[in-house]
Amino acid sequence: MNALLTDLYELTMAAGYFETGRSAHKATFEFTIRHLPPGRNFVLAAGLPQVVDYLLNLRFTPEDIDYLRTLAQFERVSPAFFEYLAQFRFTGDLFAVPEGTPLFAGEPMLFVRAPIIEAQIPETWLLAAVSFQSLISSKAARMVEAAGGRPVVEFGTRRAHTPEAGVLGARAAYIGGCASTSNALAGARYGIPVAGTAAHSWVMSFCSEQSAFRHLQQVMGEHATHVIDTYEPLQAARRVVELGRPLWGVRLDSGDLPALSRQVRQILDEGGLTDAKIMASGDLDEYKIRNLVAEGAPIDAFGVGTQLSTSADSPSLSAAYKLVELDIHGIQRFTAKLSPDKLSVPGAKQVFRDVARDVIARSGECGRGEALLRPVLLGGRLVEPLPSLDEARARAARSLAQLPPALRQLEVGEGWPVILSRELRELIERTRHNLAG
Amino acid sequence: MNALLTDLYELTMAAGYFETGRSAHKATFEFTIRHLPPGRNFVLAAGLPQVVDYLLNLRFTPEDIDYLRTLAQFERVSPAFFEYLAQFRFTGDLFAVPEGTPLFAGEPMLFVRAPIIEAQIPETWLLAAVSFQSLISSKAARMVEAAGGRPVVEFGTRRAHTPEAGVLGARAAYIGGCASTSNALAGARYGIPVAGTAAHSWVMSFCSEQSAFRHLQQVMGEHATHVIDTYEPLQAARRVVELGRPLWGVRLDSGDLPALSRQVRQILDEGGLTDAKIMASGDLDEYKIRNLVAEGAPIDAFGVGTQLSTSADSPSLSAAYKLVELDIHGIQRFTAKLSPDKLSVPGAKQVFRDVARDVIARSGECGRGEALLRPVLLGGRLVEPLPSLDEARARAARSLAQLPPALRQLEVGEGWPVILSRELRELIERTRHNLAG
Repeated sequence: MNALLTDLYELTMAAGYFETGRSAHKATFEFTIRHLPPGRNFVLAAGLPQVVDYLLNLRFTPEDIDYLRTLAQFERVSPAFFEYLAQFRFTGDLFAVPEGTPLFAGEPMLFVRAPIIEAQIPETWLLAAVSFQSLISSKAARMVEAAGGRPVVEFGTRRAHTPEAGVLGARAAYIGGCASTSNALAGARYGIPVAGTAAHSWVMSFCSEQSAFRHLQQVMGEHATHVIDTYEPLQAARRVVELGRPLWGVRLDSGDLPALSRQVRQILDEGGLTDAKIMASGDLDEYKIRNLVAEGAPIDAFGVGTQLSTSADSPSLSAAYKLVELDIHGIQRFTAKLSPDKLSVPGAKQVFRDVARDVIARSGECGRGEALLRPVLLGGRLVEPLPSLDEARARAARSLAQLPPALRQLEVGEGWPVILSRELRELIERTRHNLAG
Repeated sequence: MNALLTDLYELTMAAGYFETGRSAHKATFEFTIRHLPPGRNFVLAAGLPQVVDYLLNLRFTPEDIDYLRTLAQFERVSPAFFEYLAQFRFTGDLFAVPEGTPLFAGEPMLFVRAPIIEAQIPETWLLAAVSFQSLISSKAARMVEAAGGRPVVEFGTRRAHTPEAGVLGARAAYIGGCASTSNALAGARYGIPVAGTAAHSWVMSFCSEQSAFRHLQQVMGEHATHVIDTYEPLQAARRVVELGRPLWGVRLDSGDLPALSRQVRQILDEGGLTDAKIMASGDLDEYKIRNLVAEGAPIDAFGVGTQLSTSADSPSLSAAYKLVELDIHGIQRFTAKLSPDKLSVPGAKQVFRDVARDVIARSGECGRGEALLRPVLLGGRLVEPLPSLDEARARAARSLAQLPPALRQLEVGEGWPVILSRELRELIERTRHNLAG
């Protein structure tokens, strides 16, 4: 865990807070979804265990500190600050919604309450980690919905923004409902089911396609999945029939998938391989999947890569990590930004999810329905073990099933009603009035 | 370096090559840009040192191997394969274009030539690492071109797809011509100049904006950059004037940037702060930057985040890592894929860049101009130290300056001529004929 993996200004501000004697001021910073990404009806929260791990292990090594000392920006900073950094530990609190919870525009996903330096430094890391995983889990949920019960296999590591993003993307896609991943490390690290047997290179490495298929079946047995579009898919399907069992099935990675899948199904069925499956892949997104399902293409499983692992149509999340309140020697002060389009809402918050709407309230208010933000860390310690990945996945499936059907559709609809409690509205008005005054 | 960070099928194919007695077959796999990303005139190669580091350090730990043994896909695989994995080293060759080289559709960026298992396993990792960095360096080059000499500062870690992608994104952006990064770890690890002093939270943490600015100047001196849109930008600019020096300048992060920057410039100038600079940020892309420059907005530097670090308009690269030839006991065999839209071109290649065109030739052909693909690893060893990051950045600047102006513009133009040598065309024809036959 590298403490330098942050924007420099988090560290210059840390120095500033320290040098101006404000280290003990307690700050609450809130991670909020400003707007839903274009084309989305919800954002499925993901990435919390990585945040917890980061906060619990955030340390500055002597090398980190030596580097900072070389920077012109730290020239005027006293040695005491660097001694402070050497002892740095996160001692604060983290409240968050559980992974797998769908959220909407304006809603907080988590807040950090800690001495201001400890709450400021994590901003950059936390925004990147949580936004990315939540984007991918949301995109996966759309693909899984479109697939109407057929398994969706996540294949996207090769297009992810760095290989490691592929591992965390696989994790997020699994929360969103993907059945398995091609990423072996995601399997080893998180226990996600893994899938995959052979690529075109396997076929190309043999003198004949027949020989490639035969050898794959020898090695993979009933897991053998033949990619049949290296040369001519229908001819390849006939070769699969000639070889017979054991095999799982075939994969079509290009071409006219509705027509090809029908022709291939017919060849397999007529050859007695009625139990052989057909997987489709090749730059699929939720819209293409929906069309294939609607057309009744005989496809048993979908493999998705690029469009999922980059959330290609919406590759960033409009989220902010904003200072919402301060506790200075026991005196509360509320803060907000008044920039156009980036107005922020003061005060720590709670979200109550009732049967037909969410109410964003002030933290501490009572409300009806499920209180989504729960204490995760208190005083720098984990309150209780986090839900498992499978629990997060189950929560996502359950929560999405409870949403009105219009919100689970691919098109953007009216949206889930989100209102602010009266107390929160009063706080906003009062704070903005004070700040503008 | 985790050897499991790959698609499972690379490892099942590895098992298959091993079990079918093909481990000694030498394979050449080529990383090729299939198509330029939409809206791009070139792709600027980046990520080579990470590939070299990966290949040189690729090892399977006992835990990695234990995990693979638990998988159903490996049930039929002999113990000898796992013993092979325990001893695995990359012993092959890597040829690549230097970082900072602009490439075009159809061109290879690198090829790996090694015993087939060693060349197959890196596919996934290598595609993700090189594609991502190349996307970001290309996007950065466009922004830098649009900024017309004004520095472009990379701010994007918080929107990157994982925090670590932010570090590598900063590296790639620097190759593309960015002047500095906000990412402190990118500074420490790669020696990239770092920038950043304070965010809105700094301003909000004080009771008054004036007090926030004054304290920032005390701590940051001539590096102090005041973000002036927390509340009311013009009022904030007047406060900056009241405080005077030392300071670097101000940052506008929202609002009508052309109008605001003019008004702020006037306030600063009238207040005697003619040397105070104005930085603009807030979801800028190359088009917005070009417009600001064209309108003559008095902006001295641009800070870019989301649009750069996710390559938002083109978040994936259409690239492939394809088997192009085999050497089986000294006998060459050429391979190609015949799938519609994914036709691959057989044989190891060289690209010759002449004054007005590129020629893709067979590896070993003589040609006119600069031969872009050079040996990087031979027999698993580095041929010579890689160029430094600054050399890569300088190569990018020099190479881009040599392109026709139409290719450096933001709009997609006619494109650089790329032709295939006669020998390569003959090889393609012969190979496709053989495979289709």
